[in-house]
Amino acid sequence: MLGLRGVSRAEIEVLLSTAARMRQVGERRIKKVPTLRGRLVVSLFFENSTRTRNSFELAAKRLSADTLNFSVSTSSTAKGETLMDTARNIHAMQPDCIVIRHGFAGAPTLLARCFPFSVINAGDGINEHPSQALLDMLTLCDRWGSLDGRTVAIVGDVQHSRVARSNIFGLTTMGARVLVAGPGTMCRRELSGLPVERRHTIDEIVGEADAIMMLRIQRERLGKAMLPSAREYAAFYGLDLDRLERCRPEVLVMHPGPINRGVEIGAEVADGAQSVILDQVTNGIAVRMALLYHLLGTGPGGESGEES
Amino acid sequence: MLGLRGVSRAEIEVLLSTAARMRQVGERRIKKVPTLRGRLVVSLFFENSTRTRNSFELAAKRLSADTLNFSVSTSSTAKGETLMDTARNIHAMQPDCIVIRHGFAGAPTLLARCFPFSVINAGDGINEHPSQALLDMLTLCDRWGSLDGRTVAIVGDVQHSRVARSNIFGLTTMGARVLVAGPGTMCRRELSGLPVERRHTIDEIVGEADAIMMLRIQRERLGKAMLPSAREYAAFYGLDLDRLERCRPEVLVMHPGPINRGVEIGAEVADGAQSVILDQVTNGIAVRMALLYHLLGTGPGGESGEES
Amino acid sequence: MLGLRGVSRAEIEVLLSTAARMRQVGERRIKKVPTLRGRLVVSLFFENSTRTRNSFELAAKRLSADTLNFSVSTSSTAKGETLMDTARNIHAMQPDCIVIRHGFAGAPTLLARCFPFSVINAGDGINEHPSQALLDMLTLCDRWGSLDGRTVAIVGDVQHSRVARSNIFGLTTMGARVLVAGPGTMCRRELSGLPVERRHTIDEIVGEADAIMMLRIQRERLGKAMLPSAREYAAFYGLDLDRLERCRPEVLVMHPGPINRGVEIGAEVADGAQSVILDQVTNGIAVRMALLYHLLGTGPGGESGEES
Repeated sequence: MLGLRGVSRAEIEVLLSTAARMRQVGERRIKKVPTLRGRLVVSLFFENSTRTRNSFELAAKRLSADTLNFSVSTSSTAKGETLMDTARNIHAMQPDCIVIRHGFAGAPTLLARCFPFSVINAGDGINEHPSQALLDMLTLCDRWGSLDGRTVAIVGDVQHSRVARSNIFGLTTMGARVLVAGPGTMCRRELSGLPVERRHTIDEIVGEADAIMMLRIQRERLGKAMLPSAREYAAFYGLDLDRLERCRPEVLVMHPGPINRGVEIGAEVADGAQSVILDQVTNGIAVRMALLYHLLGTGPGGESGEES
Repeated sequence: MLGLRGVSRAEIEVLLSTAARMRQVGERRIKKVPTLRGRLVVSLFFENSTRTRNSFELAAKRLSADTLNFSVSTSSTAKGETLMDTARNIHAMQPDCIVIRHGFAGAPTLLARCFPFSVINAGDGINEHPSQALLDMLTLCDRWGSLDGRTVAIVGDVQHSRVARSNIFGLTTMGARVLVAGPGTMCRRELSGLPVERRHTIDEIVGEADAIMMLRIQRERLGKAMLPSAREYAAFYGLDLDRLERCRPEVLVMHPGPINRGVEIGAEVADGAQSVILDQVTNGIAVRMALLYHLLGTGPGGESGEES
Repeated sequence: MLGLRGVSRAEIEVLLSTAARMRQVGERRIKKVPTLRGRLVVSLFFENSTRTRNSFELAAKRLSADTLNFSVSTSSTAKGETLMDTARNIHAMQPDCIVIRHGFAGAPTLLARCFPFSVINAGDGINEHPSQALLDMLTLCDRWGSLDGRTVAIVGDVQHSRVARSNIFGLTTMGARVLVAGPGTMCRRELSGLPVERRHTIDEIVGEADAIMMLRIQRERLGKAMLPSAREYAAFYGLDLDRLERCRPEVLVMHPGPINRGVEIGAEVADGAQSVILDQVTNGIAVRMALLYHLLGTGPGGESGEES
């Protein structure tokens, strides 16, 4: 699972329906099934992300797989080892699946081409973050039944967001229309190469969207050359109560987390009745269970269905 | 389990007797029971503590629970996320229990009020550290049978010690008398609001105590405005062989660890026949198994006893 | 398992043959056997090594043992605790085995003398790294059947290499002849106290060796007083394609990893047909499973064979 570009509607529907079934495991008293017992899932994160890594780790544990974390700051890469040598070494440990996050777009694809183990892209540069988009789509489908004919707005640094890109591919494949808005440096004209409609401000979007996905703003980038201060960002692109009132009454508010309260999203909006932010977290584990199940279990890429 | 203030004698007795049974699991060849299989225990430590975190992790593993560590230095809190947002996210991962250490007194109580999962306080500011006090009491009960009428002395930075506070509440509830001593800045008069008797020096204590609990001195605080140098501290408040000889012959020597040999405790005393410091470590795992068992299994707060 | 000095040929043969059987577990779909269920393996690494620590962790998991990592940078040793106090505390947690890496030669032996748990030396100063030598020997035996009469060359910082020392003891015990070469400061005359033949340059070795083990060069040491630059090192002691062509046609190329491509080993050599570097990684897990099995299971030091 390297990205959602080119993935068919049928494939996405299978993953989402498996994820919906997997979610039930988390609701039980004993949150564990033996499906992937004795299989090895290695996580290889070249960028910090407690949240996504923990979500994959929990997904693996609920399927009874063994997990191994390669902490990259302390690992051999700090000693100058290349990505390929690290991957060769992990391969020699006979993993069934590698979950990789890397700063360079295409790193997961490179590994998938060179090695027989399954590769899940947990974020590669500004390219894709497919498990995030799948959990977003599961969250929307839970509320709407189907994405057909719905309008989803993505607001923020669309230009540099792998979350946005994966969602754009996935949502449009599933029949939704995608609007985007953000500061000029974060949402340039060339985005129109993607199947989206660009708006200049969030205010041009609020009345049209069935769901608004607020992207996380990188605080360390604010106030620099290209970008406004946090206060300006909030004023022009933040989703506060005022703007929420101008949205459709049934609008859903999403955010991939962790949120910057008072910057891209107001505290009352994040905690309000329209917010499905925490459903996204719960669905993240379910979607990652579905990915592991299809890659290692009975799905495409798996060997047989004896255990499922 | 947020603190021992206000916990009844009967409740403490149940926990200690469960812990004594749990301890037997660690003495077996196969140190594992299936009681909490498929349950999730999340540890969320905002202050470093390999020791306490490992003790809880081992306790969870011996009960077959799954564990997940939130390493806070690398997590989203480093990106400015609030405690409540971190907790909301963990909640969305459907944990059965969170073990939290936090620099602010009351943080565990806050979580327990806001979330349905069980919360164990693994140390909050200068407030409480109840599992430490329970393991101390288990260690003493093993030797004495009962705490009734016994005298326990606590020496050191009583003022800022959550270990001391939890012990003061627990020990007095169980019928013991508590003496305290420490430098003026570490053991002020207002402590007398607690049910303790204050002495000015360790020498006023040694003849009276059935057990002496030496608190760990924070080396980084010594030699600063309020505090003497390490050498002075050892001279005035350290438990060395000289002072041990003036103690009751059956006195027990305790320390929550890690010890500073030659500062608050002499090397020969730490390793001597009166020392129960390593029993404290072993009992730490047993007490934490008992807490998890009562919170998640058949005890108060648990759902049912089907697996036990 | 503290070192290979003084270990008999028969003992090594048993370990290698167990490791060969253990390797089959990694080739199965369900890479797990219940042999050491409920046993506790603690890893205590005072020097960074993701690779070796992960290899031991995977070995323990494949045998169903529980594992606990003591991360030393965040642990109590950072607060000034001594090795012995750390070990006493771990002992009180009732581990079955400690895997220790420490900067001081003899640290594992010290623990083994003082504590009843099994100790595996995962590298102690410039003394020994026995599991690495065992996996090297397993790799060679796979290809050759036996080590008798074979010539193995070790090239690099032999003087300061625990990998070299353990291999020298093991290989000669198993009937092989060992040649060594390296810069003067890394391969001094006094090495001749060991059962090796010293050569001055790698070029004096290439024609004679059945296998060449290239040691990892510590980049941070290069260019300092004693040592040449990386480029000079490669020119005089690196194994590049030119030198490989002057080797015996069936020569095997080894490296303990992580490799410095272009310094001690050329990229084409590391990836070439003679290289068994990745077999070494796979065999590392198998050898560590064999060590754990013999120490904790039915082997010498274990209690009984009921589970195997």
